[in-house]
Amino acid sequence: MSSKLEEIPGGTCAPKGFRCGAVSCGIKNPDSDRLDLALIYSKYPTVGAAVFTQNEVSAAPVQLSSSYIKTTEPQAIVANSGNANACTGLPGMDHARRMAVGISKGLGIKQRAVQVCSTGIIGVPLPIERIENKIPDLIEVLEKDGDSAAEAIMTSDTKPKSCSVKLTVNGESIRIGAIAKGAGMINPHMATMLCFVTTDAAVSKAEIVAATQEAVNASFNRISVDGDMSTNDSVIVMANGRAGNKPITRGGKGSEEFREALTYVMLKLAKKIVADGERVTKLVEVQVRGASSELDAQRIARAVSNSKLVKCSWNGNDPNWGRVIHAVGYSGARVKEQLVDIFFGGVAATRRGMATDTPLQDLVDVVKEREFTVGIDLNIGKGCYNMYTSDLSPEYVQFNREEYALNRQKR
Amino acid sequence: MSSKLEEIPGGTCAPKGFRCGAVSCGIKNPDSDRLDLALIYSKYPTVGAAVFTQNEVSAAPVQLSSSYIKTTEPQAIVANSGNANACTGLPGMDHARRMAVGISKGLGIKQRAVQVCSTGIIGVPLPIERIENKIPDLIEVLEKDGDSAAEAIMTSDTKPKSCSVKLTVNGESIRIGAIAKGAGMINPHMATMLCFVTTDAAVSKAEIVAATQEAVNASFNRISVDGDMSTNDSVIVMANGRAGNKPITRGGKGSEEFREALTYVMLKLAKKIVADGERVTKLVEVQVRGASSELDAQRIARAVSNSKLVKCSWNGNDPNWGRVIHAVGYSGARVKEQLVDIFFGGVAATRRGMATDTPLQDLVDVVKEREFTVGIDLNIGKGCYNMYTSDLSPEYVQFNREEYALNRQKR
Repeated sequence: MSSKLEEIPGGTCAPKGFRCGAVSCGIKNPDSDRLDLALIYSKYPTVGAAVFTQNEVSAAPVQLSSSYIKTTEPQAIVANSGNANACTGLPGMDHARRMAVGISKGLGIKQRAVQVCSTGIIGVPLPIERIENKIPDLIEVLEKDGDSAAEAIMTSDTKPKSCSVKLTVNGESIRIGAIAKGAGMINPHMATMLCFVTTDAAVSKAEIVAATQEAVNASFNRISVDGDMSTNDSVIVMANGRAGNKPITRGGKGSEEFREALTYVMLKLAKKIVADGERVTKLVEVQVRGASSELDAQRIARAVSNSKLVKCSWNGNDPNWGRVIHAVGYSGARVKEQLVDIFFGGVAATRRGMATDTPLQDLVDVVKEREFTVGIDLNIGKGCYNMYTSDLSPEYVQFNREEYALNRQKR
Repeated sequence: MSSKLEEIPGGTCAPKGFRCGAVSCGIKNPDSDRLDLALIYSKYPTVGAAVFTQNEVSAAPVQLSSSYIKTTEPQAIVANSGNANACTGLPGMDHARRMAVGISKGLGIKQRAVQVCSTGIIGVPLPIERIENKIPDLIEVLEKDGDSAAEAIMTSDTKPKSCSVKLTVNGESIRIGAIAKGAGMINPHMATMLCFVTTDAAVSKAEIVAATQEAVNASFNRISVDGDMSTNDSVIVMANGRAGNKPITRGGKGSEEFREALTYVMLKLAKKIVADGERVTKLVEVQVRGASSELDAQRIARAVSNSKLVKCSWNGNDPNWGRVIHAVGYSGARVKEQLVDIFFGGVAATRRGMATDTPLQDLVDVVKEREFTVGIDLNIGKGCYNMYTSDLSPEYVQFNREEYALNRQKR
């Protein structure tokens, strides 16, 4: 973290020239006034970048938004929660388009400058009229402050998630603001990972695209709660240049600081998503080093982070290195068992593939914390990779076996 | 299933010329007389084949047995439960070898003709003296009947698993007998999948090797409880030719019937392993067809079978096709969402990527059964693959988060 980087309040409204707002249109629950429609808007032209789910089955808004951003810089993001508009066929595409049309008319911007997102239940037609009816109100409530957008995109999240920073780049103070939601995490039925980032920095198109991909790779691509990948995952970044800095170009002056700050914001939100995962009690960083390549290190980090048995053991405060070394073994990476070291919070549980004589209680003391690291050193190369994951609790299963009944009742 | 194939009792003792036995040597629990050491022996020379875990971290007995069978036909299998002799370094190799030496001396056969297996807790030195002290008793109790070996290899299995058949091949009645254990399934800390098969059929070496691999591919390689792969998984087959049939050769007369019977026995045991998985309440067959290749079909079957969210939904009697199609989407296979059909027990939940108007209760009626199928048709090719999997219950997590305490107490 740069010494110049400072956290500030404000979410996506923190940078200059952005306005945000949210209303309730009764998608989450027709009988309540819970916020479920959010809008983020730059009064000024932007350059933008987006990263969408790699799932072959992607929701209508993902298909629409990824198509729009290829030709047109985004100037607004509209997002509803409560319904993912996924597996909804041609009517779903029409509904996503109508969201863009409504916002475009209301704001007087191009239709293709509107990025559309949805999160929530899948396979159910989006109640588009309820959204269209509320778009005038939504535009009316746009303001410079407030965190209502962060609240409006929540599904099973227990709290809104935002992170904003300011820092000096190329002699000017710039701001980056972001909101995110996760919770069911990559839970097809009720959730999705969404992250919307605004910045008033002046950034070249090439730089914003590269910086966004780099920051996503270092943050959202390194988290795992349940190992499932949603149809709706979207990260969208808009930069409007209102800070007046000399534009940051790819590899140019200020690029390093800007990327560091963008990564900082996304990583902070990524960790918040894991920590607020459904019925999660632990945030665990899996640090792999000494692998024969970075790809091998990543394979190991993913295998350990997704192992049901490893995650169950953490839930039980169990420094179970046996389960860890087994996941290492089946990861597909090159492994020499007799060289593997495993650490909990820096304390060696395994050296050269065998148990150390570290007192068990020392390891338990690490694993019973809410946050800890698991270090794995393959001792065969220089490849390293880290991931953030959670435990697996009986309550997670309970929640996810009961969710169905809850959802169906809502229709 | 061939009309000539008939199930019979007897486990690995069912075929002619085999003897089995088991004793307690206090590895599972020093204070109880639970059986934990099993021996299977052919008085006559055999041809054999074995398939071992693909985990890069493999237990000492796996390393030893796979080395032995490369040069020497197996004539005996010795297996202990309660300790996996995994992650035990050079002393572990020495202990595995001492098990082979003890049996070899007691039976008067070559050391390398002894296949050694262990299953149970990992990372803890094997109490080899307790085993060596009981080897004379073990050889003493060898008998033609009895299922004690199936009981002795159990770990968290709730019941012993065996399956034996007789059929006529090349004019002679032959028998195949088998025992297996699973339970923690591919649970690194307490379990492993083991399967020992005996047959009195006369079979060529090439045929027994090919038939074994084919049967494993169609059975144990198609099951998933928790998606973790053990260090100790082993399938060992011995054929001693005592049935007096004209030898079955690769692609020769009788080969088809023999392979069908061997696959039948292994598949039966594989399903028993899933159904008896830790805290499992459902046995689900995932049938994928219409994929662009068999490999793609397999990717989809594995993604669906291993998805925590899909498995949670089954536990809650939820015909949640949304979670299924999402797992299909992230499987890595080629998918056209607008062509995907999904069925529960043959009843269409999804057609062309969208919900059907099948009454929900009809689908719930399928999923609330203890056994059902989930069909997935990609409608883009001819690739098909099926797998057997289970639900994921809160009790599974509870069991696996508490197991640690249980294990440590046992040391």
